[in-house]
Formats: sequence, C-alpha cells, structure tokens
Amino acid sequence: MLKLYHAEPIANSLKSLIPLKEKGLEFESVYVDLHKFEQHSPWFVAINPEGQVPVLDHDGVIVTHTTVISEYLEDAFPDAPPLRPADPVGKARMRYWNKFVDEHVMNYVSMHGWHRMVSVIARSIESGEFDKLLERIPLHEQREKWRTARSGFNDSDLANATRKVEVAVDKVEQQLRLTRWLAGDMFTLADINFFSHCGMMVQRLFPDIGVETRAPRLLDWAQRMRERPGVKAALVMPDRTNPALRTFTGHAR
Amino acid sequence: MLKLYHAEPIANSLKSLIPLKEKGLEFESVYVDLHKFEQHSPWFVAINPEGQVPVLDHDGVIVTHTTVISEYLEDAFPDAPPLRPADPVGKARMRYWNKFVDEHVMNYVSMHGWHRMVSVIARSIESGEFDKLLERIPLHEQREKWRTARSGFNDSDLANATRKVEVAVDKVEQQLRLTRWLAGDMFTLADINFFSHCGMMVQRLFPDIGVETRAPRLLDWAQRMRERPGVKAALVMPDRTNPALRTFTGHAR
Repeated sequence: MLKLYHAEPIANSLKSLIPLKEKGLEFESVYVDLHKFEQHSPWFVAINPEGQVPVLDHDGVIVTHTTVISEYLEDAFPDAPPLRPADPVGKARMRYWNKFVDEHVMNYVSMHGWHRMVSVIARSIESGEFDKLLERIPLHEQREKWRTARSGFNDSDLANATRKVEVAVDKVEQQLRLTRWLAGDMFTLADINFFSHCGMMVQRLFPDIGVETRAPRLLDWAQRMRERPGVKAALVMPDRTNPALRTFTGHAR
Repeated sequence: MLKLYHAEPIANSLKSLIPLKEKGLEFESVYVDLHKFEQHSPWFVAINPEGQVPVLDHDGVIVTHTTVISEYLEDAFPDAPPLRPADPVGKARMRYWNKFVDEHVMNYVSMHGWHRMVSVIARSIESGEFDKLLERIPLHEQREKWRTARSGFNDSDLANATRKVEVAVDKVEQQLRLTRWLAGDMFTLADINFFSHCGMMVQRLFPDIGVETRAPRLLDWAQRMRERPGVKAALVMPDRTNPALRTFTGHAR
C-alpha cells in the first residue's frame, strides 16, 4: 500500500506525483497544507522528523527526499513503466542531471518563489505568532529560510540565484540540441526533476532572462512534458494556493 | 578498460578510489596534479569540461561526479563485490545518506580544508599569475572558491561550516547507535562517502568539537573502515602534497 504526503503539484511535491502517475501506481494522496504549516506540526514531524513534504509511505516504510523517492519507485516496482534507463551509462547520465538540478537549480528557483510568495505570507503573521512558528521548524536551514522570507532576501543573493537559473537554462538548451530528453532518448526522472523545479515555471518566474529566444528547445521539451498523460494527471491534483498569491507562483496551468 | 583520473587519496578522489579497490576492479591510475592546477589545463578540460577530479573513463565513456561514478560501478560491474544493498529499502537508505553528505557535509569540511591549506597556496601566487589561473577555471563556483581562498573565508561562513559538521557528526553517531554501518547492516557507498569527506579527518580538522567524547561510535566506525583491505589500498595511493602543508589536511594516515 502506497501513500504520498504532499502539497500543491509544483516543485518537490510535483516531482513525486509525476512518477507515481507515469508509472500508473495506485496511491493514497494525503494533502499536507503548507499554508497552515502542517508540515511542522507534531503529527507530521512524527512521520518525517525533517518536517518536509513529500513523504512516501510504502507498507509502513518511510522514504523522504524526492530524488531518493523517485529511484525507490523504480527499484520497488520493476514491472511498472520505467522512468530510469536500463543500461549503466543511461543511469549515470540521468543521475548526473538529477544531481545538477538538486544542487544547482532547485534552491535558486525556490528563492525567487519564496521571495514573491512566501515572503507575503511570512509578513502577514504577527511577530509573536511568527516566532512560535519558527520554533516548530525542525531543520536549521528551513528556519533560516523562513526568517529571511520575512526580513527579505538580499539583492545579491537574488541576483546570484537568477544567474544560476540562466546557467541551468543554457545548459538544458545545449543538452536538448544533442538529445530528445535530458539523459538521452528516453524520458526519465531527470526530466521530471528539472520540469518540476524549473522548466514548468521558468518563463513566468524569470521573464527578464528571455527564455523564448535563448531556449526554444527547452520550451518545446516543456510542452512535450505537459502533453504526457502522467504529467497531466499530476498537474490537476488539488491546488489550495490563495488565488491572490497564485500569480506569483509561475504556475504552469 | 577502466581509467581513473584522480588526485591525492582524500575527499573526492578517495571516494572513487575506495570503490574500485573494494570491488577489486583493475584500473589505470592517472594522477592529476592539483598543485600544478592540471585539473584546469586544456588536456584535462577536454576530458571533463567542469575541470574537476575524479573522472572515470570506462572504454571511452566518461563519468563525472563521485556519487554518480560510485553507482555506475555498481551498475556496470554486477559480478564484483557489491557496495550497494540489493533491496529497494536498503538502496533508499544508502542514497539518503549519500545525498546528506553531498549536500550538507562535503562543502563545509572542504571550506575548512581550503581555509588552512589552499589559502596558503593561493596567497603564494603572484597577482598577475593568479588572475591567469582564475581565468582557466571552468566552473563559476570553483573560481569564486579560489578567489575567496586568496582573500580569506569570512568568520561567519567558517563558523556556519563548523556547525554543519557538528550536526553531521551527531547525526552519524545517532545512526550508528541503531545500525553497524550508515545504511544498515551492510558496508555501502554511503560509508565511503562520509569517510572520504569527513570521517577520516574530522578529529584533526575540527579538534574543538570534541569528537572523542561526543561520537565514540563514529571513531569505532572510522577504525573499522581503515581496517578494510580496499580502504587500506586506496589510502596508500601516492600523495604529493607539500609536507609543509600536510599537517593542515587532517590526513588520516
């Protein structure tokens, strides 16, 4: 029995929803309301001490961190449609890209998302209440991110994040000159990773970097992603984002 | 035919040398002299455009990034002694730790290593020469790290890095209360990762955090690592570090 604790179909949560849908695996969806800080509540921290979504529960075995969850689904369900190449070189190519997205893309796109959306939420909370919220956040880095969301990300960090996204966009565009998908001819977890953390919203979140002209293959690739039934099914999962904030999310729908 | 381009048996290079030795795989060792900045020279950048060691060449297929190389060796040589659990849950546990070391340990230990050793090298180079060296470094982050090594890492970054190492030491100690190795009963790539980037030199590099008293299981685990024939064989690979600098490296030998 599979259960996924997740939030809106974007970023980390989308990255785990797509493989489940693409592989046609039945799972119980447990919505964790980030707007109510449920991810830091005692019931959730009892499941994932790091207080972060998504979390996979497979017959009671808890798996956290999206890249680990994705490979786990490949290993645990070998008869479902694969999202990882069968050959060692293909696997290495996929993991190279997963590592690149995890270490050089995710946090930088996320900073701009937080700057425009989470900062609005963080500033709407009264000081005493905000301090109580911070106390409940298990991970130091996450606590600092919330603190900064309230006080404001600094300009040089935001500019550096934009630079990182430009490097990533150019790198992906360059790869798509050579291969149809990021790791080669096959649609893999690497495509799902980059799409969920960057590809799906890069145009809206970074209008100034000129994705349309500098990365036409990336746009074609993103369109091919959106047409996949599994991706479509993941993208229509419930979204309870406050509509007033949704314009800032760069949501692809 | 396997070929490994690598530097001294510590950190990244050690992390790839140990699996090759543990698996008993024959390989050609190509020493890349970091003291002469060979990793940024045209012949090496032609092999790895990112200008970093180690690099695996398997019959002409180039694989970079140590965690990717490690899993590649598991996939490409299924008949050699495994360093990755056979079951999906074990694999997920191993990957959780690999990700933790890659994202929350490696760069923080490295900053202190650079602070004490590479800074000495960087400051010994004349300005004009140093600028030329910087120009040849392909990765922006690596260029900035060299620049900072010369100007000096700032105290708050160094203090934060020490804090990250303390968190890691406590987390590993906690895990070793539960299991013999990081990912469970089996010695895996996760142990090799943490040992190479932190475990082998944490006492010498961070004498003030009191590893002896706070992490006795970690010390026992590091000793068990050093007794493995494959680890021993990797640790005796050539080390051309300037002896005057070697005291700063926290070298385990």
